[in-house]
Amino acid sequence: MAKPNAFYAQSGGVTAVINASACGVIETARKHRDKIGKVYAGRNGILGALTEDLIDTGKESDAAIRALRHTPAGAFGSARYKLRGLEQNRAEYERLIEVFRAHDIHYFFYNGGGDSQDTAYKVSQIGKQLGYPILCVGIPKTVDNDLPLTDCCPGFGSVAKYVATSIREAAFDVASMAKTSTKVFVLEVMGRHAGWITAACGLAANKPGQAPHILLFPEIPFDQEKFLAKVKDTVNQKGYCVIGVSEGLHDAEGKFLSESGLRDAFGHAQLGGVAPVIANLVREHLGFKYHWAVADYLQRAARHIASKTDVAQAYAMGKAAVEFALKGHNAVMPTVVRKSSKPYIWKVGMVPLVDVANQEKMLPRDFITSDGFGITAKCRRYLEPLIAGEDFPPFKNGLPDYVVLKNIAVPKKLKTAFNV
Amino acid sequence: MAKPNAFYAQSGGVTAVINASACGVIETARKHRDKIGKVYAGRNGILGALTEDLIDTGKESDAAIRALRHTPAGAFGSARYKLRGLEQNRAEYERLIEVFRAHDIHYFFYNGGGDSQDTAYKVSQIGKQLGYPILCVGIPKTVDNDLPLTDCCPGFGSVAKYVATSIREAAFDVASMAKTSTKVFVLEVMGRHAGWITAACGLAANKPGQAPHILLFPEIPFDQEKFLAKVKDTVNQKGYCVIGVSEGLHDAEGKFLSESGLRDAFGHAQLGGVAPVIANLVREHLGFKYHWAVADYLQRAARHIASKTDVAQAYAMGKAAVEFALKGHNAVMPTVVRKSSKPYIWKVGMVPLVDVANQEKMLPRDFITSDGFGITAKCRRYLEPLIAGEDFPPFKNGLPDYVVLKNIAVPKKLKTAFNV
Repeated sequence: MAKPNAFYAQSGGVTAVINASACGVIETARKHRDKIGKVYAGRNGILGALTEDLIDTGKESDAAIRALRHTPAGAFGSARYKLRGLEQNRAEYERLIEVFRAHDIHYFFYNGGGDSQDTAYKVSQIGKQLGYPILCVGIPKTVDNDLPLTDCCPGFGSVAKYVATSIREAAFDVASMAKTSTKVFVLEVMGRHAGWITAACGLAANKPGQAPHILLFPEIPFDQEKFLAKVKDTVNQKGYCVIGVSEGLHDAEGKFLSESGLRDAFGHAQLGGVAPVIANLVREHLGFKYHWAVADYLQRAARHIASKTDVAQAYAMGKAAVEFALKGHNAVMPTVVRKSSKPYIWKVGMVPLVDVANQEKMLPRDFITSDGFGITAKCRRYLEPLIAGEDFPPFKNGLPDYVVLKNIAVPKKLKTAFNV
Repeated sequence: MAKPNAFYAQSGGVTAVINASACGVIETARKHRDKIGKVYAGRNGILGALTEDLIDTGKESDAAIRALRHTPAGAFGSARYKLRGLEQNRAEYERLIEVFRAHDIHYFFYNGGGDSQDTAYKVSQIGKQLGYPILCVGIPKTVDNDLPLTDCCPGFGSVAKYVATSIREAAFDVASMAKTSTKVFVLEVMGRHAGWITAACGLAANKPGQAPHILLFPEIPFDQEKFLAKVKDTVNQKGYCVIGVSEGLHDAEGKFLSESGLRDAFGHAQLGGVAPVIANLVREHLGFKYHWAVADYLQRAARHIASKTDVAQAYAMGKAAVEFALKGHNAVMPTVVRKSSKPYIWKVGMVPLVDVANQEKMLPRDFITSDGFGITAKCRRYLEPLIAGEDFPPFKNGLPDYVVLKNIAVPKKLKTAFNV
């Protein structure tokens, strides 16, 4: 009897460790060849399922799969593609089941954020409605750390380690130069709605008063006057000022600072880049020489400085997803459960997908200092374990040696194409 | 008899490894206590000498000095301060000698780029003119790699490793997302006049056709039409396009792209940021979704991903400077001499400061492909050894553990202040 196959897909923005989850899924499935046949991956995420463009991970060597653990980004391609509700677009869900049926797929592993967990939940529903047996297990992933019910999200710890390291290093630079040159440095980081990554910048300070001196969170409406006063005070006291700012910083009316006035030669608003806006404010009002950096994809792809804790958790989530499915669990997601912060002890938990879907976990107000510009001891206690430990990739010729898979397509079985 | 003291100062923009040169100077001087008394460092570079603000490095433990080897930026403070010619401002040079005389300083070690080597040369001249015995030895440093007569400059190898690693990682990210999202990624790197850092981005490609697909050098005037055609072709062929661009990219008239039209709400030209300009061009003309990053100080401060070769050379330059002085050499600079590329063999050389001063070494035209968008095999052969090897700093609580020195001031002996 043919064993049921599994489908795995990566969804949304990728991270430094989402491939470690893929590694966990595939290695664990390979240990249970008696129960799981092939692991098919969706080329470009869920699009691969809709268009029947499946990758046979069985064609990859054990060494290649092992190398996924230290390779950033999405080895099979990810997709920004949100399936609409079952009512609005039932055809897409039925198509998924059609493809799964054609390839004898009865396990669905979906590695993504809130939207993706919602999709995984809906696939489990349509499976029931159509009487097609499929076990759907979500695998958490997001650099934004905004999923509910899990203590943290794989992907976040590594970006946190990257931004804290980077802003510490840049602060050493600015401190060296401040006497005669740059006095204000601004680093823009990701996290449009939730300030977790901005908060992680704060880990760079070992003691109060150390850089970064100002954090600008998306949860705290930007108060220009208060901000400029704080910059001026900091430069007067310390000689320089280092600022971490969320790409999602907005004013009291909800208007993003990044859209607040930069125009190109054609008069179009310039998209992206709150750091130059903040830096220009400093120049206009205080006249300090400044530098700014926008880390953008560098931060979420920085596998070279990944958190060992994060890599371990990403792998564990992938492994647990397969184990849950093998035990017959459906419409669930593994989580990270924190047992203790010092020493840091965590275990794998499980939550129903229906409870996870489409929720965002903001930075709690008591993680932000009362002036709105820093992180509290409580926040630090939460964050510190997540960046602990190094897990350097192998290097070759001076550069990280990342794997590129063969990604061989599974022959199509369906006669119909599907337009997405 | 009191032994003569030494003065050491850091000058200009700092690097991930300039402190490794400081470490080489101080550790080597400590091994020759019979010949060198104290090593005084200038607080904020040459300003410390002019204002008699000297740091007694003898108050730092051996462990603290050893930690300089893995700590980025300038531990004693650097300065962007160019001494003018002897004729225009003789008073500054005479003041230096006055301070040196007061503190029995007869060795002058100046760690910087072309301007600084010029200053070191002038100090040696004024010493002779005033009959004050002082041995002046320059120590090369610049991320821009633009000093002549040395095969490479300490600081460059580490920034090269950082940008090549970063653009490789970001390229993996873009490749994952390109089907439904970002198709063009732009990374802006340093090097206003010379394209060495831009060239280093090219190391990320293992094979022709791999990312980065386009490099925009300051040596090649920007041709918008040709550039956009290449972006379009690349996206059509590969599905995405990764671009490395020098901050100093300019058009045929010499106008910097970074100044080409971005205005803030007040109508002022926005300073800095060629990456958003390039990205906006792509959007305007081709309509591709894009992301951009500006690494800025992150690249030159990134000690966490320093090149082992670079660290070793930075240390060796500091060590050699002291050894040269002890042998009585004056107005010289140690250099890196390449004996062989494969295997990479280098040794320490020596050149007269007068030959180094105020020259810039551009990227040779035969290091750039004929279309102007990539690096040649010759360039790769030159660059590869410079990023070889890893030299990770120690980590503590998940972050690089960098040293902050006590920087205790030497009591002033002069009654006169000096305004700079």
